[in-house]
Amino acid sequence: MKKSLKSFFNPKGIVFVGASKNQNKLGYGLAKNLAKCDYPGEIHFVNPSGGELFGKKIEKTISDISGNIELAILLISSRFVLDTLLECKENGIKSVIIASGGFKEVGMEGALIEKKCLDFAQKYNIRLMGPNCIGLIDSHLPLNTTFLQETNIKKGSIGFISHSGAICAAILNWSQGQGFNFSKLVSLGNQADVNETDVLDYIGADRSTKTICMYLEGVADGRHFVNTGIKVTKTKPVIALKVGRSESGQKAVESHTGALAGQDIAFDAAFRRAGILRVETTEEMFNWAKTLAYCKNPNGNKVGVLTNAGGPGVTSVDAIEKNGLELSKLSDNTKSELKNSLPGSASVENPVDMLASASPEEYARSLTLLYTDPNVDLVMVILPPPPMFPAIKIIEEILPIIKLKSKKPTVVVPMGDSQIKDAVNMLRENNIPEFRFPENAASSLGALYSYSKIMRKDNSQVILKDDVYKSKVEKILKKPDIPQNDFVSDDVAHQILEAYNIPVLKMQLSKTVEDAVEIAERIGYPVALKISATKIQHKSDIGGVLLNIKTQDEVIEGFKKLIKLAKQKYPNSDIDGIHIQKMADKGQEVILGAVQDPQFGPLVMFGSGGTEIEGLEDIEFSLGPLTQEDINFMLSETWAGKKLKGFRNIPPVDRDALEDSMIRLAQLVKDFPQISEVEINPLNVFEGSKGVIAVDVRIKISE
Amino acid sequence: MKKSLKSFFNPKGIVFVGASKNQNKLGYGLAKNLAKCDYPGEIHFVNPSGGELFGKKIEKTISDISGNIELAILLISSRFVLDTLLECKENGIKSVIIASGGFKEVGMEGALIEKKCLDFAQKYNIRLMGPNCIGLIDSHLPLNTTFLQETNIKKGSIGFISHSGAICAAILNWSQGQGFNFSKLVSLGNQADVNETDVLDYIGADRSTKTICMYLEGVADGRHFVNTGIKVTKTKPVIALKVGRSESGQKAVESHTGALAGQDIAFDAAFRRAGILRVETTEEMFNWAKTLAYCKNPNGNKVGVLTNAGGPGVTSVDAIEKNGLELSKLSDNTKSELKNSLPGSASVENPVDMLASASPEEYARSLTLLYTDPNVDLVMVILPPPPMFPAIKIIEEILPIIKLKSKKPTVVVPMGDSQIKDAVNMLRENNIPEFRFPENAASSLGALYSYSKIMRKDNSQVILKDDVYKSKVEKILKKPDIPQNDFVSDDVAHQILEAYNIPVLKMQLSKTVEDAVEIAERIGYPVALKISATKIQHKSDIGGVLLNIKTQDEVIEGFKKLIKLAKQKYPNSDIDGIHIQKMADKGQEVILGAVQDPQFGPLVMFGSGGTEIEGLEDIEFSLGPLTQEDINFMLSETWAGKKLKGFRNIPPVDRDALEDSMIRLAQLVKDFPQISEVEINPLNVFEGSKGVIAVDVRIKISE
Repeated sequence: MKKSLKSFFNPKGIVFVGASKNQNKLGYGLAKNLAKCDYPGEIHFVNPSGGELFGKKIEKTISDISGNIELAILLISSRFVLDTLLECKENGIKSVIIASGGFKEVGMEGALIEKKCLDFAQKYNIRLMGPNCIGLIDSHLPLNTTFLQETNIKKGSIGFISHSGAICAAILNWSQGQGFNFSKLVSLGNQADVNETDVLDYIGADRSTKTICMYLEGVADGRHFVNTGIKVTKTKPVIALKVGRSESGQKAVESHTGALAGQDIAFDAAFRRAGILRVETTEEMFNWAKTLAYCKNPNGNKVGVLTNAGGPGVTSVDAIEKNGLELSKLSDNTKSELKNSLPGSASVENPVDMLASASPEEYARSLTLLYTDPNVDLVMVILPPPPMFPAIKIIEEILPIIKLKSKKPTVVVPMGDSQIKDAVNMLRENNIPEFRFPENAASSLGALYSYSKIMRKDNSQVILKDDVYKSKVEKILKKPDIPQNDFVSDDVAHQILEAYNIPVLKMQLSKTVEDAVEIAERIGYPVALKISATKIQHKSDIGGVLLNIKTQDEVIEGFKKLIKLAKQKYPNSDIDGIHIQKMADKGQEVILGAVQDPQFGPLVMFGSGGTEIEGLEDIEFSLGPLTQEDINFMLSETWAGKKLKGFRNIPPVDRDALEDSMIRLAQLVKDFPQISEVEINPLNVFEGSKGVIAVDVRIKISE
Repeated sequence: MKKSLKSFFNPKGIVFVGASKNQNKLGYGLAKNLAKCDYPGEIHFVNPSGGELFGKKIEKTISDISGNIELAILLISSRFVLDTLLECKENGIKSVIIASGGFKEVGMEGALIEKKCLDFAQKYNIRLMGPNCIGLIDSHLPLNTTFLQETNIKKGSIGFISHSGAICAAILNWSQGQGFNFSKLVSLGNQADVNETDVLDYIGADRSTKTICMYLEGVADGRHFVNTGIKVTKTKPVIALKVGRSESGQKAVESHTGALAGQDIAFDAAFRRAGILRVETTEEMFNWAKTLAYCKNPNGNKVGVLTNAGGPGVTSVDAIEKNGLELSKLSDNTKSELKNSLPGSASVENPVDMLASASPEEYARSLTLLYTDPNVDLVMVILPPPPMFPAIKIIEEILPIIKLKSKKPTVVVPMGDSQIKDAVNMLRENNIPEFRFPENAASSLGALYSYSKIMRKDNSQVILKDDVYKSKVEKILKKPDIPQNDFVSDDVAHQILEAYNIPVLKMQLSKTVEDAVEIAERIGYPVALKISATKIQHKSDIGGVLLNIKTQDEVIEGFKKLIKLAKQKYPNSDIDGIHIQKMADKGQEVILGAVQDPQFGPLVMFGSGGTEIEGLEDIEFSLGPLTQEDINFMLSETWAGKKLKGFRNIPPVDRDALEDSMIRLAQLVKDFPQISEVEINPLNVFEGSKGVIAVDVRIKISE
């Protein structure tokens, strides 16, 4: 059981080792921030040269300090850090922020120092933040352990967890111009010990934080991160910017599933499971954050728009629809009331265009009407510089209505710069989300609506089946002929799926033409003939599959043809023989696959099957084992899933049976991490309630 | 031949009718802007009440003015506008800006006034801008005919044409906080006469304008707009934000092509043909505009990134790849020089991370190295607040290098707010594009690269074939049994395609079972049987197509089955009989379609065929007739196009023959606007150079 992070964020007393009197050193800046940040506990400075700084004596060693200290901050050469940790231990300090660089990030030697520090810390139950980080800021306690030049840090409600210190520094400064503030801000550095999941967990329970933003370069423990996310997002929104998309590393390319899976897709699936909102850009993250921090959850996705000009209104309509929201259809009552109170040529259809002459009172009256309309869930008020009134007059008039009269989330869009500055400032002071353009406003309302759906969903219940036979698969995988790092034979693949009660289309191996004929006659025509050789994976690519064989003569001819082909194309491979399989009944053909992601483990794929999967890319991924939400997502976001209910001349098919097989496959790869790739392509899904059948299966084992 | 817009933008003298001494009136604001804008010619004010304003006498009528006047600006009640136009005419004024509202936008009565004004103006060769517009600003002449409150309008190089006056007002004010300036800004209002294409044409030739931005709610004359775009974008970039995506109006839904086409898709095709860059948001438009206005065209898409921190570097890499750019692979020479001049733990791979300690000199030296590296086409310099130096020091050091030493487009990303304000201002004064985040910077560089490709392309040459027989189609369409507003029979559809030399798979109509057998025996098995009835469009949806019929008995059985089915499903339709068609040879099946777009005319569709087109949405559209660029686009952006060259077990097919049919179909719908929908689904494209064949064709005629 790891110790809580409380003594990082709310320590009884602090020592800063590395305080400097030289104003050009970071050790001066850090000491200054500590001394001036109004931290309510004791602060001590340490530097072997001694002296005095900001009215405090600089002690020569930690041991010279009397008083209760819980947190040490080190900004000293990495060479001295291990010794200083020893001193920390001897003085009972259990939490240490190592702000200095010179560790893993600079190469082997630094990595060795980092390892030694971590080993020491773990041995003595000391928790480390960093190294190579800029520490943390808490605007409420308050506390500032960074050397950032920022002054005037105000209390806010957005938490920010970042893998990059530079991003922290930039965003903190940028936020002041944007008029939003942080509750807590943490730079994680090399994460020798404390990682993003630890801090997410801690800040997740922080009352002053209403929304958490994360700048992530990866996650240390995928499943732990996801589970923490599931817990935190039940009570507050988490928004993540995951960078490093291109660093997908080595991809498995031996199956369609392997070729299509990748780090970024795994993150998509993980964030979705965790209920974390994923953003594309840094700006979008904080645009969303302020709306999510300031607004209540909406009851629906219908937006009422109030504007004094048509152009911005049209822009808002596009943006609303683009962001998963809908334009409210205003009630007849609202429209007739609007008609009564607005000029004749105003538009009382949504967006309500009050014309350029719109007065503060007209804004106020119309806004009140939108709030009382049951068809309006969210409100956007647009305000290009009004030609007849200062923008601030309008805000003064509508502010009390927004704040007091409605629980409907409202964003305001004063457009411009100098002409709307006062208006913007007033909105900021009152925690009303404001944007310069309807597009950003709509994107934020979209995020708010997304989060309201996340809160309503239960995404923690994974579905597991009882009637799967793990021990059978264990037994199969222990057999001596199971490869260590290769595909298993078709027979074995079938046995594995059958152990998990996924129906497979039986087939039998024929070693000779006579075998083949005998099997075909027995199972009945038409049959399919398939080369059986574990080395030959995409059999159909080389013409290794013959379908619709209808006579004995065709079996004989086909058998010979396939054997010849296999020997010719793969002269050095062992050919087991030719599989004879009854032709599958017609159904909708889908692909069902799974891989093991290095960060998140089992990742299940569903989509349109066939040989052109990579081309059509009609596929989605989810973490395994699956939740009902995951299944619904994969079936609603792919064409393969949408057409299960029928389309034109394609009849509806057995969705329940498909879901059952999805669940079982996900369970299989969860139970057996050594099963690194599974691909059922196609899985035929039959009409009515006639079930599914796996027609072609490939399973790969990795060490 | 319409008169040039010169007297709007550079009039010899101006009269403003509606000048007001009341400071609360727009007529005061407009008079003030005119009087104070440093316009070099004569300005006259008119108001029946007379008096004096800004040191000028207010005349009672236009006729009271002596002197040469080319432009009149009217801000008077719409009721008086027609009379005032008469006065304009009598005083030889040929250009009039009607700033007042009260016209088409307020309803029928206003529309009538507008119509009368337009008729009058056209009769006397007067050109009108507006009504219901805010006029124009030219920062270079200078001239300001608006009533906007903006002061301090600086000379800039971005032209802005807007359908929305409010957007003009908001953007003009916003631009001042963003540090970019306009050359010309035009609000078009109701566009009774002067429209977006006229102004695009005029500003396209304006020397002070380097980039044109357009806020469009539609276009008045689609093809004229496209042709003007093609001309203008050869010399300067044009960026458009098209709003009103959701107002797609009535869609034809009787063919896949009709169901998938729509106003927004037509705009995509039109902008692409015109070389106009389409943006998604207002902010993005101006982010791109400043980069396109300030930077030269790059030679390629390889970006070198310079940063003092890893986090923003990683962010930039993602954004670079997302925007169609690539990260440069730095030359060995650059890397070794960087190694010599940077600390040991700096990263000399791109992005070059000089570490937080990076000095102004290190920035300058490294930047010079990126400029001399032949693998670098574009440069992004990232600058989170440097902990050791003020940001401005770095900009001072690198500015001369950016300005003098390189022709490589360079954007700078100072991150933060107050800590980088000086740096940002210095960049703005020097017309270096600057952004707060790498994402915006990369998006802008991506637009710059896109425009460099547009300049290199020749997209004005549409391809037309000589061996098409227009007169044959004319003759066919004149036949009495051709419907006025419905699908033509399969036979007619075949004849039409054949007249344009698009190969069709022959079929013959059988009225009786005996006919059917006779035809099948003659053309040889296997055959397909298809219901022939113009009312039954998606035949396969109701089971009206039987494939692979191999024997006489199957023909008899099939014939009876289809007749019964047709009578049952469409009891009130005329059934022509059953078509007997030889089974098509196997090939790649694509869909080729065309519709008439109300704004842009012929619109051609290409993609993956079959019955699931709307589900898979693997389709693209282009304006017809086609250019080679359009064809290349449709074939490279769809999976159907990509796999023409073969994929796995799918052999490569005859792309040339496909292109030929695409060209011919586009030509057909251009030649015959009454052909409102054509759909060839599938068109089979055969291996090698074996050509194509249209298997199933539907053609609709509309009035």
